[in-house]
Amino acid sequence: MTMIAKTPKVPYYAVVFTSIRTSEEDNYDEMSDKMVQLAKEQDGFLGMESARNEVGITVSYWDNLEAIKKWKYNMEHIVIREKGRSTWYQKFKVRICKVEREYGFEK
Amino acid sequence: MTMIAKTPKVPYYAVVFTSIRTSEEDNYDEMSDKMVQLAKEQDGFLGMESARNEVGITVSYWDNLEAIKKWKYNMEHIVIREKGRSTWYQKFKVRICKVEREYGFEK
Repeated sequence: MTMIAKTPKVPYYAVVFTSIRTSEEDNYDEMSDKMVQLAKEQDGFLGMESARNEVGITVSYWDNLEAIKKWKYNMEHIVIREKGRSTWYQKFKVRICKVEREYGFEK
Repeated sequence: MTMIAKTPKVPYYAVVFTSIRTSEEDNYDEMSDKMVQLAKEQDGFLGMESARNEVGITVSYWDNLEAIKKWKYNMEHIVIREKGRSTWYQKFKVRICKVEREYGFEK
């Protein structure tokens, strides 16, 4: 998860999840790993990037909106999301985006 | 920079900048602050979120593609970008995205 995601040619979709944590640990790291594992098993999952300081940003990439919707309604994901609202997150925002252009650089 | 950006109703645009740094400091923090300051002065700038661990993610939000283009061709930004390629970044990827939906949560 520490790499830049290798994504296909545009267009594809990105879900930008920005969050501020509570001080509750309560298996957060374990949940976080589980979420990544679950996402990877989903059809249409393309990759993920994640970083956290005061604010946490996780960007997941998907083939299309249908794949994002299926991920949203994945049962285990729903259970973990509820726990996110009740315990781990003070605040979050989810933005669903169509990636229209991209460019990169590598030494 | 430590907050979740307050953005308007969709649609608007997001630029997701994912990067891996070199070990060169060479005024990186100063440049980083300067870039934020410069972006804020641009027409159409809506907000920014940023976090870095092994990978750094900065998401800036913009009114429209035209605003992003103008920011791309801002002279000071170009100078700093060149230095980014030569010095600060080992690798980066820029994804230009249309934010189509969003939802949030706050305790």
